[in-house]
Amino acid sequence: MSAPENNYIWNCWYAAAWAHEVESAGKLERTFLDKPVVMFRGESGRYVALDNRCCHRAAPLSMGRVEGDCIRCMYHGLKFNSDGICVEIPGQDKIPATHRVRSYPVEERGNLLWIWMGDPNLADPNDIIDYEPLTNPEWQGLPQEAYLHYDCNWMLIIDNLADFSHLAFVHTNTLGGSEAYAVETKQEIERLDNGFQFERWHRESAPAPYHVKAYPNGPDVVDRRNYVQMFVPGVFLMETAFGPVGWDQSDDQSDVKQYRNCQYMTPETGSTAHFFWNYLRNYEQSDESISISLRDSLLEGFWEDKVIIEAQQKLLELDDPFQPRGIAADSALAHFRKTWDTLLEKDHTEHPQPVAEVSRSIL
Amino acid sequence: MSAPENNYIWNCWYAAAWAHEVESAGKLERTFLDKPVVMFRGESGRYVALDNRCCHRAAPLSMGRVEGDCIRCMYHGLKFNSDGICVEIPGQDKIPATHRVRSYPVEERGNLLWIWMGDPNLADPNDIIDYEPLTNPEWQGLPQEAYLHYDCNWMLIIDNLADFSHLAFVHTNTLGGSEAYAVETKQEIERLDNGFQFERWHRESAPAPYHVKAYPNGPDVVDRRNYVQMFVPGVFLMETAFGPVGWDQSDDQSDVKQYRNCQYMTPETGSTAHFFWNYLRNYEQSDESISISLRDSLLEGFWEDKVIIEAQQKLLELDDPFQPRGIAADSALAHFRKTWDTLLEKDHTEHPQPVAEVSRSIL
Amino acid sequence: MSAPENNYIWNCWYAAAWAHEVESAGKLERTFLDKPVVMFRGESGRYVALDNRCCHRAAPLSMGRVEGDCIRCMYHGLKFNSDGICVEIPGQDKIPATHRVRSYPVEERGNLLWIWMGDPNLADPNDIIDYEPLTNPEWQGLPQEAYLHYDCNWMLIIDNLADFSHLAFVHTNTLGGSEAYAVETKQEIERLDNGFQFERWHRESAPAPYHVKAYPNGPDVVDRRNYVQMFVPGVFLMETAFGPVGWDQSDDQSDVKQYRNCQYMTPETGSTAHFFWNYLRNYEQSDESISISLRDSLLEGFWEDKVIIEAQQKLLELDDPFQPRGIAADSALAHFRKTWDTLLEKDHTEHPQPVAEVSRSIL
Repeated sequence: MSAPENNYIWNCWYAAAWAHEVESAGKLERTFLDKPVVMFRGESGRYVALDNRCCHRAAPLSMGRVEGDCIRCMYHGLKFNSDGICVEIPGQDKIPATHRVRSYPVEERGNLLWIWMGDPNLADPNDIIDYEPLTNPEWQGLPQEAYLHYDCNWMLIIDNLADFSHLAFVHTNTLGGSEAYAVETKQEIERLDNGFQFERWHRESAPAPYHVKAYPNGPDVVDRRNYVQMFVPGVFLMETAFGPVGWDQSDDQSDVKQYRNCQYMTPETGSTAHFFWNYLRNYEQSDESISISLRDSLLEGFWEDKVIIEAQQKLLELDDPFQPRGIAADSALAHFRKTWDTLLEKDHTEHPQPVAEVSRSIL
Repeated sequence: MSAPENNYIWNCWYAAAWAHEVESAGKLERTFLDKPVVMFRGESGRYVALDNRCCHRAAPLSMGRVEGDCIRCMYHGLKFNSDGICVEIPGQDKIPATHRVRSYPVEERGNLLWIWMGDPNLADPNDIIDYEPLTNPEWQGLPQEAYLHYDCNWMLIIDNLADFSHLAFVHTNTLGGSEAYAVETKQEIERLDNGFQFERWHRESAPAPYHVKAYPNGPDVVDRRNYVQMFVPGVFLMETAFGPVGWDQSDDQSDVKQYRNCQYMTPETGSTAHFFWNYLRNYEQSDESISISLRDSLLEGFWEDKVIIEAQQKLLELDDPFQPRGIAADSALAHFRKTWDTLLEKDHTEHPQPVAEVSRSIL
Repeated sequence: MSAPENNYIWNCWYAAAWAHEVESAGKLERTFLDKPVVMFRGESGRYVALDNRCCHRAAPLSMGRVEGDCIRCMYHGLKFNSDGICVEIPGQDKIPATHRVRSYPVEERGNLLWIWMGDPNLADPNDIIDYEPLTNPEWQGLPQEAYLHYDCNWMLIIDNLADFSHLAFVHTNTLGGSEAYAVETKQEIERLDNGFQFERWHRESAPAPYHVKAYPNGPDVVDRRNYVQMFVPGVFLMETAFGPVGWDQSDDQSDVKQYRNCQYMTPETGSTAHFFWNYLRNYEQSDESISISLRDSLLEGFWEDKVIIEAQQKLLELDDPFQPRGIAADSALAHFRKTWDTLLEKDHTEHPQPVAEVSRSIL
């Protein structure tokens, strides 16, 4: 593993937390791209993200006290405003301009907080991928937006989502179905400058187990459609529909059940990742039991992924050389990794990370 | 610790598992010499050992599914035969010849599976040290052949077994006896090209506590004989007998109780080891309670070793230089380590490990 | 972190253990300055500290058996006297002079054992800081002298104790009090060649919560005095008094409650530390409930410190550069660290650590 500053695209928006994780005046300690951050909501309602290390001697601000839109370190009482500027040192009148912690731009879209870990001057909120179903009342999501922590490089989760043939083997009894899904369906991807998209049909097959659980009264044989989009740095958006055979050629869409799914992968470190997700539907929105069924089924499926991906991570970390061999189904993940590399090089070339000057460690 | 490829003799047979650990169509994930391996028994009865990392993206084959003598990776469905050749990729017709995982020769002898981690072309099953009592019905072993995992370099276990004076101090109340054992008995070793052997008598002494537990009606004073053999890479074979004083000069051997003991040490990594053992006797073979007594006593004794050896390992791992000082009783272990070094150099010179070409890590 | 030998002042006395931790003929395994030590009390009453690694093959002497003032390794029976010289090898007549373990000078003062990790020839017991209240019957201490283990560099605990403004924020409800303590009181330090001292008054304030718990019938408004001394390598001594306002100008000291407090910080490794402490008073000495109250209050306060300091350690260990920014209240800790650096350079220049010759690792 190379130095952290070389691993990441710095100047882009990363999913950071669901709003409910950062309660009003509460504090969330979370690491992004190897950097420790404290997030909190100020009393004005503003979300704030700061370096979690008090500039004095690195005591955690996440153990501090929110005061207005400021936070006070509860070790020696230094107080920082939402720009990270130290505005109070108890018993000391003059505060040097060097006394500040780094502040990270934060934006909220559809209850999802996004963070910008690069140069704040480059942060344009218009670049955030705002997923429309999250705020559209036609779509009903989970009882609460969900989070999982992975002990793996975030790119392995992206790999997972880039090849749907794994549904047949990993998720046979949950999100996938028969192994025919891997063999019979093709995944023709559309290559984008910042990711990929593809549509994948599975015709005349049994509906996926999770759908049957949520909606037991549908047809036994369906045409299943997935429309997938994946964007740098790790944004996965998917439309899923189950309907009677041939529904896409029919005027009657009344028996077609639609889902909207978003998943966000954000590096915590090079070997651990944050994973955020919601799963929404446009039918029987007021039936809470369906929301719970979908939450439980999806979580069951994600755990199937998590177990195998974390095992994969451990095997890849071994001090024993491993040469991966590509297969045809890798086209999406291969393009995504190539895209990532291109954008990373561009980011590092155009916006080199400032070199930190550290006079001396206090350890 | 140097790179893994430099630490081991590659071209020799290592004890890998008892057959009962690899149930029919079950899968055993185990690391040998820093390399991750999956072992399973194919439906034909054949034992198979493969690199545990699917050649696609290192998902663990040990989470796969045995099909005939093949195993299918349950991530994206690649199927490998017992030679490690990929014979199926779902949804893909052509399979490149590069798509394979390493296959390791495996042989079974007396319920013990042996693995060859070096060049398969050099693997000669005739070189396996086949311990005759394991298959000779005159000898009754434990209720089940036994395994322990050690958090130490395997050579420290070999050191332990190479000097029997530790019986007096570590195993006073279990396998050893009084401290006179360390002082009064001499251990004249015979140096071999691939190990050592020695005979050690303890005359006119109390029988060892474990023997008294298993066979309470023997004489109170005995002559005890141990005949020990140790071979590279870590094969320990021992004949033990307790009999009336002077039994070796007597025609009457009826009161002499004989044991046969095998112990196998295999490196998992440079700091962890596999340990396999059985303990057999040629008296009252049908009395299961004696087998159980011996199993419990030996396990008690091995735990005494394990505690002190693992503490030794921790102290040797410290970043504080340690200069070992030899004692007279080190002759066996010193010869073994010298033998190991000679054979290791010969192995590395005559059969250099192939250099792995890795185009790029996917982490 | 640089190599252990460069991190420490070797030639000085470090607090090592309370006497009750080293019971007669018992053995205490403890690491100091990255070196593994076994401490025991010989049958003559003498305290002994030796390298915990038997010179033979590094088996832990702490698993050994005390015999007189010697200790016998219970792996192969080597016996070492209190100077670390091997005096017996079972079954071997001649013992080479090289067969010895390092012996560390140990001295006891007021139930506290001190160890000298440097050149034994330089160890002068007169240099030990013998805290008089520990042996003066006028001062009543805790029910038992206390120990805590910290997962942090010991210098971070010294930093903590060098700036009392943290009492206002970390110990509001235990050892400190209102935040006025940080703002209103000044800490004028006296710089010493081997540390610092200061006196800090807090006038006309509520007494600290821990004092109210121990002595509920005192005045509601007090003048509080702390007189603090800190010496290299990590010796903290403090006089504390709570009395009626203006008590220091009064002839009547009857309502002044006095405490004496000692705390000792000793590096275990670069990232872990030993912490020893006692808290004594000169009033109602026979009331055990006050001793218990003080013990519980102080422990509660030290846990408040421990939580924030260990979090600070973790943040400082991150692979993300951190530049500390000084504040006015840092004067004591800054002087202490400067003093430490000066004395460390002097120690390393005048008494270079001997270079260990190690022929070969047995791992």
